[in-house]
Formats: sequence, structure tokens, C-alpha cells
Amino acid sequence: MTTYDSPGALVRTFIDLLVANQPDAACAMVSDDCEYDNVPMGKVFGPSGITASLAPFLGGCTAIEWNIHRQVESGTVANGTVFNERTDRFQLGGRWVEVPVCGIFEVRDGKITLWRDYFDQSTFRDQLTPGA
Amino acid sequence: MTTYDSPGALVRTFIDLLVANQPDAACAMVSDDCEYDNVPMGKVFGPSGITASLAPFLGGCTAIEWNIHRQVESGTVANGTVFNERTDRFQLGGRWVEVPVCGIFEVRDGKITLWRDYFDQSTFRDQLTPGA
Repeated sequence: MTTYDSPGALVRTFIDLLVANQPDAACAMVSDDCEYDNVPMGKVFGPSGITASLAPFLGGCTAIEWNIHRQVESGTVANGTVFNERTDRFQLGGRWVEVPVCGIFEVRDGKITLWRDYFDQSTFRDQLTPGA
Repeated sequence: MTTYDSPGALVRTFIDLLVANQPDAACAMVSDDCEYDNVPMGKVFGPSGITASLAPFLGGCTAIEWNIHRQVESGTVANGTVFNERTDRFQLGGRWVEVPVCGIFEVRDGKITLWRDYFDQSTFRDQLTPGA
């Protein structure tokens, strides 16, 4: 099992796996009862719920980039909190859509137990349906 | 001039002043070029711009509560970063509206130089116009 120096390093690896379109490997890093709260859209729970929520969308992308602008953490991988500010970019149907996001992660005993992203749903949706 | 032990303590005082409906006193804590970015709505700059943006809305509230659920910081009041997760609540026309928010603050030389709030604009707007 990989060990991490800090909760922030753990979260960066988790994001690297998502960006590499490896949701199964990413979700091996979350706890059995992990809450993934995409604030304006709703919550799913646990590795299988999170994978089922992410895999179809990520799998439909021809490229993925998440740029972390700032990240601040407290505590340890045994009991820590991470916030980051990101621009999540997805290439779909030959064009890029991007979402400004602020994410919160709680880490307990080396696993992510909470992942909550704040963003404006219309900002994302309006890019998915241009001209609508 | 008040001194603060940490950028997080400074941000808590700033928020206390806003909740007390004292935007002028709060904005004395921001730099001349401070950026206030209400992500889905746009940006204003500097103490006068921020006061002009906030005062009419805050002044129209009969009560204000911002509950800070989590806050993490790095650095010092000379050069620090603060993230917090909040529920911002406003009493308007006899009822409460509330917005889940993730906020980012940069602090330089004892002043707030960036305040950026991430939230879902529809979540807020739909409460302001119920039944619309």
C-alpha cells in the first residue's frame, strides 16, 4: 500500500488518477462510506457509487486536465483536511469545457472519507449545450 | 491597528464584521487593490467597490448568519491563504435564504488581497424568487 507524506499529497495522487481516466484506481483511495458531494447536483457514496458516477463521464472525454491553482491542508493522512481551487477541463466532442471548482477533502486513516466540490452548475451545463 | 495571530483569525474577524452588517469596518481590512470575486456573478475591486457591492444587500437583511463548517490556512498574516466552507444565511422579508459556499482568501501584509467565493448561483437565486 502506497504511503503519503501528507493529506495534500494523497489528494494530488487521487486527482492524478482521475485525470488519467482511472476511476477504479482513484476509488481504491476512498473509504467504504466515502461521501462524494457534487454540491449543486447531489451525493453518492462509497467506491462503487463514486466510480459509477464518474466513469461514464470521464470515459466519454478525449482528454482531461485539472489545474490546481491553490491547495491548503491541515493535519495528517490519519486525520486531515485539504482544500483546493481548481479549473477542471474536459475535452468532449472536439472542444473543451471547463469548470472553476473549489474542492474539500477529508482524509481519515489514509483514505478519503469526504470529497465535496463547490461550483456553479449553470457555468458547466451551459458549455455542454452551447446555443441552447 | 489590530494584530492577528494568523490569517485564519483575520478572516474570522472580517466575516464577523460582515455578519454584524458593518461592511465599512470589514472593508478597512482589505487592500486597496483587493479582488472580491463572487465566481458565477463577477468581480469588484478595492474597499469602495466591495462596500458598494455588499452594503445594499446586507442592509436589506433583518438578520445575517454565516456558519463556518471548516477552515484551513497556511502561512502568516504577512503572506497567507485561508479556505473555508460555510453556509451563508440571510433573513429577507421574514424568511431565511441560505447558500452553501466555499471561500478563498489571500492575506498579504495584514490585509485581505483576494476574496473568492464558489457557490451555485441558481441555488441562491431560486430562493430569492420562490415560485418563480
